[in-house]
Amino acid sequence: MENILGRVLPEYIEGYGEVKPFSGAFNNLGIKSKKQVSVKCVAPSDVKLVESIKEALIKCEIKDGMTVSFHHHLRNGDYVLNMVMDEIAKMGIKDIRVAASSIFPVHAPLVEHIKNGVVTGIYANYMSGPVAEAVSRGLLKYPAIMHTHGGRARAIESGDLKIDIAFIAAPTCDEYGNINGVYGPSACGSLGYAIPDAMYAGRVVAITDNLVAYPACPIEISQEYVDYIVKVDSIGDPKGIVSGTTKITKDPVGLKIAKMATEVIEASGLLKDGFSFQTGAGGISLAVAKYVRDVMKKNGIKGSFAAGGITGYIVDMFEEGLFEALFDVQCFDLKAVESYRRNVAHQGMSASLYGNPHNKGAVVNRLDVMILGATEIDVNFNVNVTTGSDGVIMGGSGGHSDTAAGSKLAIVVTKLLKGRLPIVVDKVTTVTTPGETVDVIVTERGIAVNPRRQDLLEKLKETNLPIMTIEELKKLAENMVGTPEKIEFDDKVVAVVEYRDGTVIDVVRKVKE
Amino acid sequence: MENILGRVLPEYIEGYGEVKPFSGAFNNLGIKSKKQVSVKCVAPSDVKLVESIKEALIKCEIKDGMTVSFHHHLRNGDYVLNMVMDEIAKMGIKDIRVAASSIFPVHAPLVEHIKNGVVTGIYANYMSGPVAEAVSRGLLKYPAIMHTHGGRARAIESGDLKIDIAFIAAPTCDEYGNINGVYGPSACGSLGYAIPDAMYAGRVVAITDNLVAYPACPIEISQEYVDYIVKVDSIGDPKGIVSGTTKITKDPVGLKIAKMATEVIEASGLLKDGFSFQTGAGGISLAVAKYVRDVMKKNGIKGSFAAGGITGYIVDMFEEGLFEALFDVQCFDLKAVESYRRNVAHQGMSASLYGNPHNKGAVVNRLDVMILGATEIDVNFNVNVTTGSDGVIMGGSGGHSDTAAGSKLAIVVTKLLKGRLPIVVDKVTTVTTPGETVDVIVTERGIAVNPRRQDLLEKLKETNLPIMTIEELKKLAENMVGTPEKIEFDDKVVAVVEYRDGTVIDVVRKVKE
Repeated sequence: MENILGRVLPEYIEGYGEVKPFSGAFNNLGIKSKKQVSVKCVAPSDVKLVESIKEALIKCEIKDGMTVSFHHHLRNGDYVLNMVMDEIAKMGIKDIRVAASSIFPVHAPLVEHIKNGVVTGIYANYMSGPVAEAVSRGLLKYPAIMHTHGGRARAIESGDLKIDIAFIAAPTCDEYGNINGVYGPSACGSLGYAIPDAMYAGRVVAITDNLVAYPACPIEISQEYVDYIVKVDSIGDPKGIVSGTTKITKDPVGLKIAKMATEVIEASGLLKDGFSFQTGAGGISLAVAKYVRDVMKKNGIKGSFAAGGITGYIVDMFEEGLFEALFDVQCFDLKAVESYRRNVAHQGMSASLYGNPHNKGAVVNRLDVMILGATEIDVNFNVNVTTGSDGVIMGGSGGHSDTAAGSKLAIVVTKLLKGRLPIVVDKVTTVTTPGETVDVIVTERGIAVNPRRQDLLEKLKETNLPIMTIEELKKLAENMVGTPEKIEFDDKVVAVVEYRDGTVIDVVRKVKE
Repeated sequence: MENILGRVLPEYIEGYGEVKPFSGAFNNLGIKSKKQVSVKCVAPSDVKLVESIKEALIKCEIKDGMTVSFHHHLRNGDYVLNMVMDEIAKMGIKDIRVAASSIFPVHAPLVEHIKNGVVTGIYANYMSGPVAEAVSRGLLKYPAIMHTHGGRARAIESGDLKIDIAFIAAPTCDEYGNINGVYGPSACGSLGYAIPDAMYAGRVVAITDNLVAYPACPIEISQEYVDYIVKVDSIGDPKGIVSGTTKITKDPVGLKIAKMATEVIEASGLLKDGFSFQTGAGGISLAVAKYVRDVMKKNGIKGSFAAGGITGYIVDMFEEGLFEALFDVQCFDLKAVESYRRNVAHQGMSASLYGNPHNKGAVVNRLDVMILGATEIDVNFNVNVTTGSDGVIMGGSGGHSDTAAGSKLAIVVTKLLKGRLPIVVDKVTTVTTPGETVDVIVTERGIAVNPRRQDLLEKLKETNLPIMTIEELKKLAENMVGTPEKIEFDDKVVAVVEYRDGTVIDVVRKVKE
């Protein structure tokens, strides 16, 4: 069958189940439900601190076929996923589904567990490195299921993704399970992605290298959600957790794109008092923040909030009074961690509050402007950030689809070419984010506006910006480097790409070798 | 039938259902569940701000037989319950169950709604004033159901108490439903009791007199839980909301009791580094805090936390460094509100985190010492704080049973006589808190230790405190004022007293007139 975007999907996928085809970004709302949760009551005399990960696994009654979850605030410095999976493997457990909010190169040992049948399924919002390559090569028994950040929260809360045991990497924790991310040698700041896991998993285990006296304040995840606590030597490598600083691009082409994107924002009329904004930590995205900052300061604009993964650059804008508040699901650098610890209006947010389409209004719904990246974008404005142009998984939505859907103005900033390949194509390799939620693409050679946004097109025509159709933009690129060769795929589905509402927007097939 | 305390209970109560008899304070734990929640999704284009309470009621599809909930942070200054119930009455709706965490004299207009059949059921953790009297006189169609603070959270979360529409009195709110209690003309501090309602009700309406720009930080209840927002002129009378200051008793008898209670705490061995403590806002209780403070300062003791409804006196102890943290479900005075706004380690807690026995460990489980009041206490240490000695409802558990069950040492402080009536009796009029969870009673004439606590009795025998049996204490009182006359009751059950786990610990019957 085909979904509304014309992507060909099986009706049923082994290890996934029946496919609900994507039918439009706002077509699957209405009344939804959050699942029942089972709780093992803790009496006053009970002790929650256990000796080892193995003891916690035994107490949680780990068995074949279970789903265990992890969150990615420790990013490429994370030790927790590997520690737990090694223990599970040692215990001889098989057929485990790993629901990790993101998977990084540091998680390479998972590949061995996949080969040995310890791990047969993966859920992730983002994957890069050896595990992503192994999945793309078809090593995993069942297809990986790729969510958006908000979609993962939705799946957990609705029960679509049933977590048996959640493991919380806890930078600071007390013996009763109060957790925060702002203190300790592995401090990472906000623990937003772990909150749905903690609230909805069957059992919850906190793993900490900084066990402090009760109560561990400020409490980000409270004792009422945690069954067991394990103290280990180290939960992560600080060098991999947060970067010291996130940097603006110095590349003149990147700066040019950022400047043009800022002019698009100005022309849209959104850059006024009450302005809200999100951008990733990429070099061009940060450069947009820099130019927006200049405009806000010049014109005395007082914004409402910035959201997302928070960088030091956004903290600077906040501390200069350009924003009233920050909504933070994950801190990207030490400055963000420090601000989150100190500033009351630097608020944590759960993945659900951030982007879940099935709650009473996520923060993304309040965004004026979102700055997005792209690996490919097609003439219908569909964006791929899941696979590379070689068809291999190298990313995933993360918050891409959530923020695109929620924001009033979603702008893709990208160079027109990536190496010798055009970014604008007829048909993206994989659809991550549907074109109906993407408003503009800004490249160094030209800007294309989604035809759905005639209002915006009118406004941009009054500027000196190089506005063209997306077909023209595609032609520009093709004139420079030609049309890229088609990649050939097997039939085998190696990953299912779920839109934030749980429908299937695309599948990733195995690349022919 | 009789429950384990020998209280005679019907097996079935009209308007309540089957009675599960109380079978011991820690006998009904194990695996429990939190209920499924239905959510009306909010899309980016949706607006949550509505014009009036009536419009909110219509959007929430109010109808006969529904349960609507309220919380009591505005205490005897609350306007919200009356405003909403008046609107419901005007709309001609009947047979409403009012689930208010507490009911105060200011809610007298409810009596008229009870008489007219608009309100046929009441759930409350505490009731005083005209509504309590009306219930006691049998005016309400169905028996009132009285919870503990933790038990109400449990009932809401498990689905035993199904709330159709929750109304949140919001001292500060934005148009998307982020709420805090720390700013605005009706600032009341922590909104802990409202959190289960917000998380588990079918629909949630915030009613505010301080609508601020998005986002209202710090967020205590977030937009993901709120369906509609209504702006009104005023949600409460500041004079009734928080007292300017809470005061220590000056009565020498009260001070003597407090001094003795403090000596009991010292003798128990609990008053050392890491000490945790809760006391109510009553004059004798606060005096205990004063003496405990003196001991802590003298001996350089560094406590862990104080919890509960927080008073300025406890804030002083916290700010002097005697406690590392405060857990606050409700601020009792302006100083507490101010501290809650400013101090990171002055943490809010939901009613569930505070006292729900069916979660993974409530804060009460971590209490060393709890100072309790009593209207009556019987020779088995069962305590009544629900009915007066005339059999009329004048209170309720609130956190009484929760803290007694959780704490290592639960001390009742009371004068031996109340007017011309003895406090210690053979059988309390109503059991609120079971004797197995009460360790000591301290009166000006003597101290009795629960025989279950031989360990404590041994320690106290080494002091000069006037230790005696509870029977001796009773005799002392009776020698002074004689044995009180028995109150005569009808068969009609006017209130069901649920223990925190949802079993029935007692019923209140109609007083014979």
